[in-house]
Amino acid sequence: MEEKEISQAVVSRLPRYFRYLGELKDAGIERVSSQELSDIMRVTASQIRQDLNNFGGFGQQGYGYNVGYLYDEIGKILGLHKEHRLIIIGAGHLGQALVNYMNFERRGFLFKGIFDIDEKLFGTQIRGITVRPMQEMERFVLENEIDIAVLTIPKNSAVEVAEQLVSYGIKGIWNFAHVDLHVPRGIQVENVHLSDSLMKLSYNLVSHEG
Amino acid sequence: MEEKEISQAVVSRLPRYFRYLGELKDAGIERVSSQELSDIMRVTASQIRQDLNNFGGFGQQGYGYNVGYLYDEIGKILGLHKEHRLIIIGAGHLGQALVNYMNFERRGFLFKGIFDIDEKLFGTQIRGITVRPMQEMERFVLENEIDIAVLTIPKNSAVEVAEQLVSYGIKGIWNFAHVDLHVPRGIQVENVHLSDSLMKLSYNLVSHEG
Repeated sequence: MEEKEISQAVVSRLPRYFRYLGELKDAGIERVSSQELSDIMRVTASQIRQDLNNFGGFGQQGYGYNVGYLYDEIGKILGLHKEHRLIIIGAGHLGQALVNYMNFERRGFLFKGIFDIDEKLFGTQIRGITVRPMQEMERFVLENEIDIAVLTIPKNSAVEVAEQLVSYGIKGIWNFAHVDLHVPRGIQVENVHLSDSLMKLSYNLVSHEG
Repeated sequence: MEEKEISQAVVSRLPRYFRYLGELKDAGIERVSSQELSDIMRVTASQIRQDLNNFGGFGQQGYGYNVGYLYDEIGKILGLHKEHRLIIIGAGHLGQALVNYMNFERRGFLFKGIFDIDEKLFGTQIRGITVRPMQEMERFVLENEIDIAVLTIPKNSAVEVAEQLVSYGIKGIWNFAHVDLHVPRGIQVENVHLSDSLMKLSYNLVSHEG
């Protein structure tokens, strides 16, 4: 597929376009020029045109972009028209925070199960989703056609659990564990390394001091 | 200062170097060549040399890098030798998850206060830290010399709260709200847009299908 060639830098910017277009749409705005979008998003109009040209353009000379159409198209490019079925490994605060974030559900990311090693939690419910023992993971993934696993477990167990998940047929891992996962080709990993983010903030604070 | 010129792409990679060097150090390894580091980190040796040359190099021809020294130096570049004093705005699951993550404390990020609008939470403690009403935020920031605010509140209130925080003297914002904050020059913002990350994973899943 052609999309495979798109750089991850461009891909990283798509959700932001999607967000701003959603806001324009909610505000009842029907069309927008790349210059207007540039002013709102604080990126150059040429960047916007280049990014969107990766997917065929969408704009018309002298008209600009149709907000609703572009919003829908970017949503499709992001795969938001498809349903994703997720499990969370780790029923701690972070796992609970993610389950409770309703917006994911609205975008088609459905949390189906939560797994933990703490037997005190087995059978308890988080927003209606039962916490289960890790031993049930394999069967659960197969029976519920889970495609994404979210790892909110410590880094020392994350590598092994990720390998298990891949062997069960998981296609994507949303990894919050502070470790790099090396997975076979064809498996997608998206990392949220919170410590790295905080250190980057620290760098920018210290390097702009005084 | 010279550091101001470093690109954010390089800065983004520094925490990862720091993490891998920490692991080598913990394993008792005293020196490492850029080729060895390249194999472990799965980036090219030339990228490593280029990145580190931004800060003066640290390596010696034929010797490689001294692990402990490089670890310490990158830690200093990241500002981890300084203490940061943080407050969290939003005592929900995500706020609690961050407060409970002990590693931040070990790196010198000290959580001092938690603020919320829900009066049922006022006075309750999360890992020994009291939840306070937003009205006390200004005085608290001044009296406790807070430099970083963490926003785990909905996007509709985040922009206004960020403006308040800046007016109270906050220098850095770690923003989990799903909105871009436009702050004055000199104020550092680091965003963790969880939805964007999940959408990127969705894109990669859908574009690599079939």
